[in-house]
Amino acid sequence: MENKIQTVQTLLDALPYIQKFRDDIIVIKYGGAAQTSQELKEKFAKDVVLLQLVGMKPVIVHGGGKSITNLLNELNIPTTFIDGQRVTSKEVMRIAEMVLSGEVNKDIVSLLNFQGGKAIGISGKDANFMQAVAKDETKFGYTGIIKQINPDIVHKILNDGFIPVIAPIASGASLSHPGYNINADLAASKIAVALKARKILFLTDTPGVLDKEKNLIQTLTIEQTQKLKEDGTISGGMVPKVDACIEALKGGVKKAHIIDGRVPHSLLLEILTSSGIGTCISL
Amino acid sequence: MENKIQTVQTLLDALPYIQKFRDDIIVIKYGGAAQTSQELKEKFAKDVVLLQLVGMKPVIVHGGGKSITNLLNELNIPTTFIDGQRVTSKEVMRIAEMVLSGEVNKDIVSLLNFQGGKAIGISGKDANFMQAVAKDETKFGYTGIIKQINPDIVHKILNDGFIPVIAPIASGASLSHPGYNINADLAASKIAVALKARKILFLTDTPGVLDKEKNLIQTLTIEQTQKLKEDGTISGGMVPKVDACIEALKGGVKKAHIIDGRVPHSLLLEILTSSGIGTCISL
Amino acid sequence: MENKIQTVQTLLDALPYIQKFRDDIIVIKYGGAAQTSQELKEKFAKDVVLLQLVGMKPVIVHGGGKSITNLLNELNIPTTFIDGQRVTSKEVMRIAEMVLSGEVNKDIVSLLNFQGGKAIGISGKDANFMQAVAKDETKFGYTGIIKQINPDIVHKILNDGFIPVIAPIASGASLSHPGYNINADLAASKIAVALKARKILFLTDTPGVLDKEKNLIQTLTIEQTQKLKEDGTISGGMVPKVDACIEALKGGVKKAHIIDGRVPHSLLLEILTSSGIGTCISL
Amino acid sequence: MENKIQTVQTLLDALPYIQKFRDDIIVIKYGGAAQTSQELKEKFAKDVVLLQLVGMKPVIVHGGGKSITNLLNELNIPTTFIDGQRVTSKEVMRIAEMVLSGEVNKDIVSLLNFQGGKAIGISGKDANFMQAVAKDETKFGYTGIIKQINPDIVHKILNDGFIPVIAPIASGASLSHPGYNINADLAASKIAVALKARKILFLTDTPGVLDKEKNLIQTLTIEQTQKLKEDGTISGGMVPKVDACIEALKGGVKKAHIIDGRVPHSLLLEILTSSGIGTCISL
Amino acid sequence: MENKIQTVQTLLDALPYIQKFRDDIIVIKYGGAAQTSQELKEKFAKDVVLLQLVGMKPVIVHGGGKSITNLLNELNIPTTFIDGQRVTSKEVMRIAEMVLSGEVNKDIVSLLNFQGGKAIGISGKDANFMQAVAKDETKFGYTGIIKQINPDIVHKILNDGFIPVIAPIASGASLSHPGYNINADLAASKIAVALKARKILFLTDTPGVLDKEKNLIQTLTIEQTQKLKEDGTISGGMVPKVDACIEALKGGVKKAHIIDGRVPHSLLLEILTSSGIGTCISL
Amino acid sequence: MENKIQTVQTLLDALPYIQKFRDDIIVIKYGGAAQTSQELKEKFAKDVVLLQLVGMKPVIVHGGGKSITNLLNELNIPTTFIDGQRVTSKEVMRIAEMVLSGEVNKDIVSLLNFQGGKAIGISGKDANFMQAVAKDETKFGYTGIIKQINPDIVHKILNDGFIPVIAPIASGASLSHPGYNINADLAASKIAVALKARKILFLTDTPGVLDKEKNLIQTLTIEQTQKLKEDGTISGGMVPKVDACIEALKGGVKKAHIIDGRVPHSLLLEILTSSGIGTCISL
Repeated sequence: MENKIQTVQTLLDALPYIQKFRDDIIVIKYGGAAQTSQELKEKFAKDVVLLQLVGMKPVIVHGGGKSITNLLNELNIPTTFIDGQRVTSKEVMRIAEMVLSGEVNKDIVSLLNFQGGKAIGISGKDANFMQAVAKDETKFGYTGIIKQINPDIVHKILNDGFIPVIAPIASGASLSHPGYNINADLAASKIAVALKARKILFLTDTPGVLDKEKNLIQTLTIEQTQKLKEDGTISGGMVPKVDACIEALKGGVKKAHIIDGRVPHSLLLEILTSSGIGTCISL
Repeated sequence: MENKIQTVQTLLDALPYIQKFRDDIIVIKYGGAAQTSQELKEKFAKDVVLLQLVGMKPVIVHGGGKSITNLLNELNIPTTFIDGQRVTSKEVMRIAEMVLSGEVNKDIVSLLNFQGGKAIGISGKDANFMQAVAKDETKFGYTGIIKQINPDIVHKILNDGFIPVIAPIASGASLSHPGYNINADLAASKIAVALKARKILFLTDTPGVLDKEKNLIQTLTIEQTQKLKEDGTISGGMVPKVDACIEALKGGVKKAHIIDGRVPHSLLLEILTSSGIGTCISL
Repeated sequence: MENKIQTVQTLLDALPYIQKFRDDIIVIKYGGAAQTSQELKEKFAKDVVLLQLVGMKPVIVHGGGKSITNLLNELNIPTTFIDGQRVTSKEVMRIAEMVLSGEVNKDIVSLLNFQGGKAIGISGKDANFMQAVAKDETKFGYTGIIKQINPDIVHKILNDGFIPVIAPIASGASLSHPGYNINADLAASKIAVALKARKILFLTDTPGVLDKEKNLIQTLTIEQTQKLKEDGTISGGMVPKVDACIEALKGGVKKAHIIDGRVPHSLLLEILTSSGIGTCISL
Repeated sequence: MENKIQTVQTLLDALPYIQKFRDDIIVIKYGGAAQTSQELKEKFAKDVVLLQLVGMKPVIVHGGGKSITNLLNELNIPTTFIDGQRVTSKEVMRIAEMVLSGEVNKDIVSLLNFQGGKAIGISGKDANFMQAVAKDETKFGYTGIIKQINPDIVHKILNDGFIPVIAPIASGASLSHPGYNINADLAASKIAVALKARKILFLTDTPGVLDKEKNLIQTLTIEQTQKLKEDGTISGGMVPKVDACIEALKGGVKKAHIIDGRVPHSLLLEILTSSGIGTCISL
Repeated sequence: MENKIQTVQTLLDALPYIQKFRDDIIVIKYGGAAQTSQELKEKFAKDVVLLQLVGMKPVIVHGGGKSITNLLNELNIPTTFIDGQRVTSKEVMRIAEMVLSGEVNKDIVSLLNFQGGKAIGISGKDANFMQAVAKDETKFGYTGIIKQINPDIVHKILNDGFIPVIAPIASGASLSHPGYNINADLAASKIAVALKARKILFLTDTPGVLDKEKNLIQTLTIEQTQKLKEDGTISGGMVPKVDACIEALKGGVKKAHIIDGRVPHSLLLEILTSSGIGTCISL
Repeated sequence: MENKIQTVQTLLDALPYIQKFRDDIIVIKYGGAAQTSQELKEKFAKDVVLLQLVGMKPVIVHGGGKSITNLLNELNIPTTFIDGQRVTSKEVMRIAEMVLSGEVNKDIVSLLNFQGGKAIGISGKDANFMQAVAKDETKFGYTGIIKQINPDIVHKILNDGFIPVIAPIASGASLSHPGYNINADLAASKIAVALKARKILFLTDTPGVLDKEKNLIQTLTIEQTQKLKEDGTISGGMVPKVDACIEALKGGVKKAHIIDGRVPHSLLLEILTSSGIGTCISL
């Protein structure tokens, strides 16, 4: 019986969070280990379905870099990176779109559906959801930066009761254009702003932002974050993550979280428990 | 961290129940210790608010016999019982209505509101919700049995997002009639049928239906229940409870539960965990 | 036939008033003789139902001081008044709430329902409709003044086609707080403002505001009213009535009426005939 | 004051009728003296507007034989009648339509609008509301009998809050066809059936159906009515009226009334007072 | 096959226009030859029905001067014109209304219905759609200029899926007033402004605005138009047309077209083809 | 001018078809040359957008066999066919899904969007739209036949104003299952039945069903079609096409068309012109 009482107490501890985020849009950048381990994938899907069930409106934005590289390798298509950004030739673009929109996206959709959700996968080409321009055409080819988002379609999908799953592919300016490959972190950030999301969460393969002693920093302001970038505490792959957070916050999102996707159910832990498990950045 | 993982696991265990009962009406007969202990009262209110938050439609039906007796005593009005049923003189009826509609009902409404719910208290007189006739006028006076229920008002309250709290008072046939005092268990049962509720729960001061060895019986069919009545295993105050359960089930309610209101959060335990804590009767 | 023609003429004379107040909220402070005489009660109820039927939205706010005093006397609980305001001890508060929410309120609800209306009785505790603070805790105890009104619930009740009947009880700041007893005239005034009512009517036991010669004054501006207060023409129990009128008018209500509840159907006479029967105060 | 009390009593006497016919469609065949006397016209309009204001849905169907004859005379176009039915040549049809749809119809629309109603005049040609075929082409020309009614447009007009005023002109089978002139009594009857009206009233220049002693018969069944026709008590111009009543009743209309349009406000007298003033026929 | 390909190409050429004007209100002043030739009438009706079918909201405003003159002549009622404007005596007004509302209006309604549309004919008297005052009572009698338009009824007709056909008759200030006869060009212009129409088209018996060499001018600005008036290029009957155009444009209508109603399907040619066939005036 | 008149006549000839199919769902199986020639692709997209614009609800179902084979070849994955059906190994399934959902589907979506439509691409996995079982697992691997369709999502997409573009991939029975590859003709047929489509069209690389003399047969009944299959007139690749037609017709679709996708705008020619260009099969 003691055990059962514990069970119920847990549910009740989540009550204030459920009340707080009811009907709010929560954008989740899905990636890293949480996307590759079969066990973590299923747990992630359960979390998303539960968030929707208790009244939130989760929106999933995913990447898929490793899967793209795998298929490029199978096809012997060379792939290069400059400053950590993929150079997207026309050939690479074709493969990137197929993998992101046709394999990774549908895989996540199935994951959610098999947990009792009703997910719909789209890319930025559907209903012309995202338009992009080249970041630097001569240097990066079809790697794009988002120019415009028409949030209408995602609002309709949400209002119809579905969970949108978004592949970071954007349409170009003409029909003959193959479209653009977008950095998934930045796509998530822009989408959160366009949807007036309350919260954005980035699932990563680190515990969050760490201080010089490698201890987790639980909360940060934008200002503090920028200082940590300047003094080098935040460096490497964490820089684009916090930049995406700051962009979302400046666009009106209330809180941006960097959490450890390797921890099972990190999503629920961060949203529905008092302490959370990662780093939360706010204005 | 282990502790947190446990937390999340608990939430996820509740997921299938939340999915199953989404948008379903759940009638809860509130009474006994759960209505007198301040601590149990608050826990009960938290449970109801959480049930609503995760998508169910709880409807509270309450009694209040002890409070009626207390005020009658303060007023030196004699009160008698025949076969466990109160004899309701005109004087008693006036007091019963005041206590039920004006004290107990509003107390529960406040309880729910202070936990973040939005409750509205009504009696069977509001919008002519319940009409009754005398059970046996010469013997019991204004103790009534329900003749008709107009569920429309409760559906509207539910659809407006409120939690209805119902005092078991019904209107009589004429304006000069003081109305009827209704047994709360039977009122709950009739209301559950009229609302096409999926589930009805009775909060009692016992663990549930017990076998001859005083061990809890977790599940029963109507047929089994009737046998236990015949062989005397079910006796005393449990008889009208199971009768109310059977009436609800025969009217189309899927499951009727008799649970221990003395156990904190027994409501959530019964609805959102796999084993439950009381007795569940079904067809 | 002449008689019948007369009949129809009367109906037609009411036509412009029916057109004028269509869909308007009309707050009616119900009290005095109209609330105690059985005959006047039924006539009042008929009036309210007819007003709703021809398209207005009546809202009833009632007092019940005499009934409270009666029950306090039966219980030998002493009750005292300072400056005409009841001192509300915790014991008195419990009784006041029971009488107002559980007896008087349901009595009015039944009255309206038996005339073909569909009334719902609430107090300020339902859906947290009214919150109050103490007027002067050491002096008056739980006698409160309204701090906030959430008109949402009453709008929903009106839009669902019901007649709201409101007991002047407000919730306090904590769960353990017994709530507040509110002066019904002031409650009516505040409710009219919060609901953006077009008209407020006070049923009293006088013909209206009288001049020095004790003749009825049919119309007054706020300014004129204040002068009559200053020169003592308006005095005694009429002062709080006109103050409640002025507060409503300053809050945006178009017209405030003080009418004679002892006159059968005074409500209809005031709203649907050209001359009216009481005093009408406007900006 | 006595006078005012009388006033209110009258309003209250109408209350049960207002409750009874709320939201019901009431078809009124307008004609005779009520259509020619300026005073009676305005009173008729007031009645209709009041009926709508208190929640009914009046639909006006009008004739206009005299106005047609007048214009035909001014134009020296010969007009003949066989068995009381106008022979409608092509030339007569053109004039009949102009007078009915362009003069009489708009005159009634203006009448209603100037009393505060919002009326819309249509003929059976609008939105193809009524299609007819010839009654007997060689004998009566373009005098038609209704073949089909599409009630959709009138329901839309009613739901938009307007009072429909219908001229008894129907469309023919081809574009070159001038349309048909329909007997207004029969049109009213068919329209009442098509709209599932609750009541139909015929304003005539007689007190109603009279017995052999020329006394008004207040109520009749279809069977009794048919006997009175057979024994000659009902004769002459009253025969087509009662036939139209019977057709409406057989089509599902609950009550059909023949009332004296020469009596001011006969419409209100019949619908909103207990005794009525004319003859009411029912199944 | 070549022929069929041509067919499809034509449909596709219309595609951008259909997209552009989707859901837009298009006011069409119908008159001249297009209203008298049976062949042109049917083609006009087909055009209007097709415009509605592909998503536009056509509103027809018609005149009918010739038909009025004809009936006046048949009745030997003298009719005079001052500056091209009819002097409308009370007798003339009665005939004008009958002809416009009862003959011409219903004729157009039938035309549209027989092509598969659902048209409803109204005049400015219906639902008090247009109120007017006298232009110059001593000089022109009941010839009016529009004072106010209540566009509500036409929006409701459009939203119900019907095509409104409007006779240029307006109501006067009192019930005894016969109403006003309005110049149809000006009525169309005012109606277009009141409805926030995107486009207004005038069907005339000329190719459009002609230059000094009698060649068609395809596009004009308001400024250019006013210069052509000043230098006499635009003169005679074209002056009131361009004035009506300018009034509509100044009131917010985007484009005003003067087109040749003698050309079959001139309406479709102007709206759905690139070059158009008449003169288009814009800001 | 003659040319322009011709233009308009063409539009008007399409009018009856536009009226007839308004609000009807039209399923289009897209494939063959129409999917490979850049010129034909754009023309197809224009056709679909125009059909939607004039009020129909087009639904596109596409195949993509050649693109799958191409990528398999690039990857040196062997691909075999038995009886014209691809044997779908797990490796082939992964590639088929990527190509269909991620390349071909998004290519069609972009095509439609760049013509002014708003298309959304989904596969049978989205919102669990299509579930399949293996056709013959040992023989064909993951080649599936449709077991169930949940049309809800497509109805929502249509009602939101989008054009659904569907890849013929279905979900399997478990999360680890890679899903099924479905024959696009059969998918189109089943989808048309599930959506209660009025019409289904198959774009092929032949003129339609040909008789023994290789002349096009314009109309066929199911019975005639089956006879032609039996006597060998219909053979080879045409057999599965007519079988898909027959299945759709038996499921309630009114007409099934086999048309020549190599003819520009064959879609519009078939739907909006009188003669059509291919073979139309009906009950």
